[in-house]
Amino acid sequence: MVNSQMKELGKKASAIRELYEYGKKRKSEIGEDKVFDFSLGNPSVMPPDVVNETIISLLNDCENVHAYTSAVGDYNVRKSIAKHLNDKYFANVSCDYIYLTCGAAASLTITLNALLNKGEEVIIFSPYFPEYKVFIEKANGIVQTVLCDESNFYPNLNDFESKINNNTKAVIINSPNNPTGVIYNEACIKEICDILKKKEMEYNHPIYLISDEPYRELVYSDIVVPFITNYYNNSIICYSFSKSLSIPGERIGYILVSSSCINKDDVYSAVCGAGRSLGYVCAPSLFQYIIPKCLSYTSDLDKYKENRDILYKALKEIGFEIIKPEGAFYIFMKVLGNDALSFSEKAKEFELLLVPSESFGFSSYVRIAYCVSKEQIINSLDAFKKLFDCYK
Amino acid sequence: MVNSQMKELGKKASAIRELYEYGKKRKSEIGEDKVFDFSLGNPSVMPPDVVNETIISLLNDCENVHAYTSAVGDYNVRKSIAKHLNDKYFANVSCDYIYLTCGAAASLTITLNALLNKGEEVIIFSPYFPEYKVFIEKANGIVQTVLCDESNFYPNLNDFESKINNNTKAVIINSPNNPTGVIYNEACIKEICDILKKKEMEYNHPIYLISDEPYRELVYSDIVVPFITNYYNNSIICYSFSKSLSIPGERIGYILVSSSCINKDDVYSAVCGAGRSLGYVCAPSLFQYIIPKCLSYTSDLDKYKENRDILYKALKEIGFEIIKPEGAFYIFMKVLGNDALSFSEKAKEFELLLVPSESFGFSSYVRIAYCVSKEQIINSLDAFKKLFDCYK
Repeated sequence: MVNSQMKELGKKASAIRELYEYGKKRKSEIGEDKVFDFSLGNPSVMPPDVVNETIISLLNDCENVHAYTSAVGDYNVRKSIAKHLNDKYFANVSCDYIYLTCGAAASLTITLNALLNKGEEVIIFSPYFPEYKVFIEKANGIVQTVLCDESNFYPNLNDFESKINNNTKAVIINSPNNPTGVIYNEACIKEICDILKKKEMEYNHPIYLISDEPYRELVYSDIVVPFITNYYNNSIICYSFSKSLSIPGERIGYILVSSSCINKDDVYSAVCGAGRSLGYVCAPSLFQYIIPKCLSYTSDLDKYKENRDILYKALKEIGFEIIKPEGAFYIFMKVLGNDALSFSEKAKEFELLLVPSESFGFSSYVRIAYCVSKEQIINSLDAFKKLFDCYK
Repeated sequence: MVNSQMKELGKKASAIRELYEYGKKRKSEIGEDKVFDFSLGNPSVMPPDVVNETIISLLNDCENVHAYTSAVGDYNVRKSIAKHLNDKYFANVSCDYIYLTCGAAASLTITLNALLNKGEEVIIFSPYFPEYKVFIEKANGIVQTVLCDESNFYPNLNDFESKINNNTKAVIINSPNNPTGVIYNEACIKEICDILKKKEMEYNHPIYLISDEPYRELVYSDIVVPFITNYYNNSIICYSFSKSLSIPGERIGYILVSSSCINKDDVYSAVCGAGRSLGYVCAPSLFQYIIPKCLSYTSDLDKYKENRDILYKALKEIGFEIIKPEGAFYIFMKVLGNDALSFSEKAKEFELLLVPSESFGFSSYVRIAYCVSKEQIINSLDAFKKLFDCYK
């Protein structure tokens, strides 16, 4: 009687949400500090002060920050973003191809609905953010997955090349990556782009590279995150301020179509059309207006780095197999016994909530979201040790 | 190369937006006060003080109002909405069937995507808000239109009954109405509901009544706007705070599934699934949290009423044929010469920007959005007189 796909999607919470809900219940039973909840990627570090300061000064000084803006977003805000990106990355960004959105999820759904015709394929790299599948399928696309190599969690390029066909419309990359914390270095990006360019020539149509970048600013090493429009013409960036400014509830981000995209005007028009038809009238106006003042700030990233360092070192010492994450706030850890689901269940016995990797389209790992308090990290180490010992 | 439907939708601004853009250009040529722009339904009255006061106190007193909320919206906020509606309308609203959204457009797209299977029909009443067509078609539905009678702009019930068939999934009503300003009284609502109940029995499946209510609080007469769940079981309310609080840029509203809906749990699950798959992670959190404090306030409606009274009286005196609007902030005026497009063009010669009714699926009218300054109303009256005289 209703749309059954939508019903099922609404009934079946994601594995991440399910574990989070279990954690809430468990905390109410045995106490907040007794449960080591590593399930959700919800920023634990407060927004930088400039966020609330800017909001208050806008409310005091501006006539009406709550009115409709243009559907693509306020012109001056878009101009400030273009300037920021051009200054920082020597990119050739034009504000005329920026479209402000209600966060990264909206950026992705709008972009996918703008690009895809029924039955066209989108390549994603496993392990992947689970919602990619939901978004692509809702936009009438077909998901094509390419495995990452376990040695570094970069995409396997042979597999990648073999999966591209005449029906391939787009590829989504996500670096810094959820769930692995890996950052694709310049060589990796160049290899991906070279393959795409070759395939574009072979099939004689654009293959769009969609770069999902909610974690762009969350980097804890000296690896530079390559700015994708500098490497590939037919590229589209889906950005969000959720994690950089720790304002995930406010839903503010943008889509940026590369100024070198072969049909940038058509892509941008389709983005506007998709946004309109999905019900996105404009991005929240007050949070649009804070952007120019807040663009170059982030929340205190040292706190995440400290968490990463403590947890990485301890898990290594215990004996777990992990790749050192360079960005985002996730550690992807190989399970013992090969079965992620039963490992995640076993972990619960020690009040450790770790997301099994099946929901990321990958087997034998768990995701640990370390955007939690330092105390939780430290207090959880003994539980990790006990979990490890179960498999000796 | 991109989705051509989305591209066309993005390229072709709505007639309303087009006229608005023309107005901006014209104002820059001959001066802001020389153009009588009645194109956009953008609230001109400031938000009540409680909006900014509440924001500031939330920022000062609460730990983190910018974090993710639950996808359906904060529990206490939903509880406050349910209480407000139950107190005001003696309705049987449960917060478990409220889903907070990014405004009325999002409420509608989410609801339509939740309900519709490919090829199912949705009835709308002409003249209708143009985006209904966009939203229904994007959700794979088929638009079925029913004409309103020109005597009162209530739906023609014979036409309505004849258009319902086994394929009819939903009906959208909008009262107070955009573009007519008409409010459906209780008798009208009862008649609509009686027909729907009869047809539900005949076809043995629910036909959902979707009530699009962005103008619920904008009422200037003693007509009571019937609360739809009190009249029809399988009803869904799509609400927005955009107009009541004059915060249209902030994108905050809700979907309410009637507690008497036959499959309310399935409908609510499908709403959750549709919201998720369209990229709506949660409604903007800060604006969720202002709701409990702001629920029973509105912007200063007397200003709209004053505008309506001046304009209605003057247009009547000049000789135009109009229905007195009881709510919203629109007047729907019969054109002279029968052709709305050429009448709207003629009006431009007097710097009057009036939206021709074709985009509302109706002929021979223009929409006048009187959510403008009182000065603009008064200064425009001479132009209306001159326009009228052209057709003598």
